[in-house]
Amino acid sequence: MKIESVDFFYLAMPVIEDIGDGSQDALLVRVRAGRHEGWGECEAAPLPTIAAFVCPMSHSACKPVSASVLGQELDGPADIARIGDLVRANSLDLPQADHALSGIDIAMWNLLGRKRGEPVWKLLGYKEARPRIPYASMLFGDKPSDTMAKARRMVERGFSAVKLGWGPYGRETAEQDEDQVEAAREAVGPDVWIMVDAGTVWGDDVAAARRRLKALERNRVTWLEEPFVSGALPAYRKLASSCRRLRLAGGEGSHDFHSARQMIDQGGIGFIQIDAGRIGGITVAKRVADYAVRHGVTYVNHTFTSHLALSASLQPYAGLERNALCEYPMEPKPLAVELTREHLDRDSRGMVRAPDAPGLGISPDPAAIRKYLVETEIRVGGRVAYRTPAV
Amino acid sequence: MKIESVDFFYLAMPVIEDIGDGSQDALLVRVRAGRHEGWGECEAAPLPTIAAFVCPMSHSACKPVSASVLGQELDGPADIARIGDLVRANSLDLPQADHALSGIDIAMWNLLGRKRGEPVWKLLGYKEARPRIPYASMLFGDKPSDTMAKARRMVERGFSAVKLGWGPYGRETAEQDEDQVEAAREAVGPDVWIMVDAGTVWGDDVAAARRRLKALERNRVTWLEEPFVSGALPAYRKLASSCRRLRLAGGEGSHDFHSARQMIDQGGIGFIQIDAGRIGGITVAKRVADYAVRHGVTYVNHTFTSHLALSASLQPYAGLERNALCEYPMEPKPLAVELTREHLDRDSRGMVRAPDAPGLGISPDPAAIRKYLVETEIRVGGRVAYRTPAV
Repeated sequence: MKIESVDFFYLAMPVIEDIGDGSQDALLVRVRAGRHEGWGECEAAPLPTIAAFVCPMSHSACKPVSASVLGQELDGPADIARIGDLVRANSLDLPQADHALSGIDIAMWNLLGRKRGEPVWKLLGYKEARPRIPYASMLFGDKPSDTMAKARRMVERGFSAVKLGWGPYGRETAEQDEDQVEAAREAVGPDVWIMVDAGTVWGDDVAAARRRLKALERNRVTWLEEPFVSGALPAYRKLASSCRRLRLAGGEGSHDFHSARQMIDQGGIGFIQIDAGRIGGITVAKRVADYAVRHGVTYVNHTFTSHLALSASLQPYAGLERNALCEYPMEPKPLAVELTREHLDRDSRGMVRAPDAPGLGISPDPAAIRKYLVETEIRVGGRVAYRTPAV
Repeated sequence: MKIESVDFFYLAMPVIEDIGDGSQDALLVRVRAGRHEGWGECEAAPLPTIAAFVCPMSHSACKPVSASVLGQELDGPADIARIGDLVRANSLDLPQADHALSGIDIAMWNLLGRKRGEPVWKLLGYKEARPRIPYASMLFGDKPSDTMAKARRMVERGFSAVKLGWGPYGRETAEQDEDQVEAAREAVGPDVWIMVDAGTVWGDDVAAARRRLKALERNRVTWLEEPFVSGALPAYRKLASSCRRLRLAGGEGSHDFHSARQMIDQGGIGFIQIDAGRIGGITVAKRVADYAVRHGVTYVNHTFTSHLALSASLQPYAGLERNALCEYPMEPKPLAVELTREHLDRDSRGMVRAPDAPGLGISPDPAAIRKYLVETEIRVGGRVAYRTPAV
C-alpha cells in the first residue's frame, strides 16, 4: 500500500509555563495508507517540525521530509527503515528532520501493527513485552527535609524506584548535596532504587562532579544522570572511570543513531536514555537498543509526555531481559493525560509494560485533539504550505 | 546597546532544481541595535529556520531562538558568546536553533565590526587576514577524458587548486576511479593541488575506501573528503590509519562545537571543514579553529553560496598561518551573485582573503533582496508569528 497522507496536529495547553515540563504541548502525526491509519508523536517543538515537513526544497540534500515519505510503499518493517534512510539522505542539511521523522516512524509502526493485529514489539522481533519498574521522577526539595517528604510520598504511592533531580542539587556545596541524597535514601529505605539527575549542572567540570561521587556511592544511587552537557564525552569518560558501583546515564538529546553510539562508545555510560520521539522513531531507537546490548550498556526509555509517546518509547527494548527500569511520566499536564483513550497504568505489582495489543495499543482521543488544537497556517510565496488539517 | 530587531529574509531562485547546489535559495538575517545594523546568512532551509526563531515556547529548554536574542545587550564579542550560550541552553531541544543562531551570530559580528570600523577578523584577535589559495570545486566527468578537459579548464582560469567529486567516483571499480584521478593529475600538471570529494559514497565501508588509497596517494591528492557519512567516526579513523601522505577531510555538516570536536578527536582527519552558517556562526567556528590548531588538524572553510557567506566563513581562520586553502564557490546561481554589492574576487596572484574593511566587508543589495524575496507568513493560534519584513 502507498502512504496517502501525513497530517500534523499541534496541540498546546492554554498557557505554557517557563518550566522544564515537556508535556505542555504536543505534536501528533497521523499517517494513512490503504484503508489503514496510525498515530505517532514527536517529542519536538511543533512549528519548526511542521515546517521541516512542508518547506520547499533548498537543494538535493535539503528537501522537506514530505518528499521522502508521501507516496512511498509501506508494506512491512523494511519499508519503514528504507523511508527513514531516505529522509536522512534527502534532508541531510535539515537538522529538524529527525524530529519530524520520529513521529512519522512511530505512526508507521503503529499503522503496520494495527493492520496485522500485532503489537509493535512483536514486529520488532521480541517474543514478549517484559515488565518494567516505573521510576517516579521528581525535583529535589529546597531542603533535605523537603526531599525526604517528597520521596516518602512516592514510596507511599507504590513506587519502588525514584529519580531526584535539578532543584538545588549541584548548585550548592558537595556537603549540602550529600545531605540531600542521604535524606532521599533515609526516606525510601534500603530497597528502593534511587537515581539522581544532575541536569548538566557541571557543564564539563569533572572535578566538581567527582566531589559528589562518594555520597552517591554510599547511598547506593543506581545512576547519575547528565552530569555534563551532551557532547562533553571526554568529561563523561573521565568521571565514569572514577565510579565504583555508580553508573552514568545520558542520551535523551540524541537525535540520531550516531550521537547515541558516540555516547556509548566514548562516554563510559552505564545507561543510555533514548526518546523514540526524538531520535528518529522506533526504528533508530531499536538500533540503539541492539547496539547497547552488544556493548554492555543498559537501554532505558526517556519519556515525559503522553502514554502514546510512552508506549512508543517502551517498544524498542520491550523484550530485553536485563533492563529493569522505565521512565514513567509522573505529573503530566491535562493535555498529555486527556490525549489518549487508553493509559499504561501500573499493574497490581506496580509494573508497567508495552501493551499486548495491536500497534502501540494506545490511541488518541479526537475530542482531546480538538480541545487543545492550535490552528496554524504557513504560506510561502502565495501558496498554503500547511494548514491545520481536519481531525 | 540593545538588540532591537532580528529580521529574516527568505530568498529563492524562481525554480529550485533537484541538484546538489546550495546557492538556489538563501536565508538572510538583519540585526539592528542602537543605530547600527549588521547582516548575516544562514546556510539552512529557510522556512524551518525562521520557524525556530518565531515558534511559541514548548518548555524551558525548548524556547524560540528569539527569546534569547531580542532585547539582549550587544556591546562586544563577549556579548555575542553569551547570547550563543543562551540560545543553546534555552533551545536545547530545538535542533534547528543552531542554524538560526548561525546567521544571527554572523550579523552580530558584522554589526560590531561596522560600528567599530574594524574587520571581524581583528575583533577575533588576528593581526592580519592571510591570503588563501581558492580551490575550484567541480564534479568528476563521466569519463576520464571529460575530467581531464574540466580540470584543464580550471587551470586555464588561473586556479592552482581543484577539488573533484561526486559523479561516477566511488560507484564504479577501483580501477576506473584510479583512471579518473590520474586523468585529473595529468590535466593539471605536477604543481596544482588536487582534492577528491567522495560525497559519503561508501557509507561506512572501510574496505571499499581502502581500495582507492593507492591511486590517491600516487597522484598526490591532498585530501579525500567525506569517504563516509558523518558520524561514522570509527570508519574514518580506520581509513586514516591506512593513509600515508593523503589526509581525510570532513565536517561540513557540523552544527555545533561538539560534533566538530568529535570528528577531530575520533575521526583521524587532517582537515576540518566548517560552514560558519551552520555551526552556530563565527563564534563557534573560531572555537573549532582554535581547537584544530591545538590538535594538529587544518581548518578550512566550507562555502557554496554568496560572498557574504564566504567572508563570514573566512573570518574564523583568517590569521592562521598553516592553512593554505579556502573553498571558493565556483558557479553560484544568479541569486547568490547578485545578493551582495561587493565580491571577494581573486587578486592578481589568484589569492583570496577576508576583506580589510569594517565588519565582513560585504553588504547585501536591497534590489536583489526584493527581486528574489519569497513572501512568507506564519500564523499560530490566530496570531501572526512571522511575516516577511520590509527590506
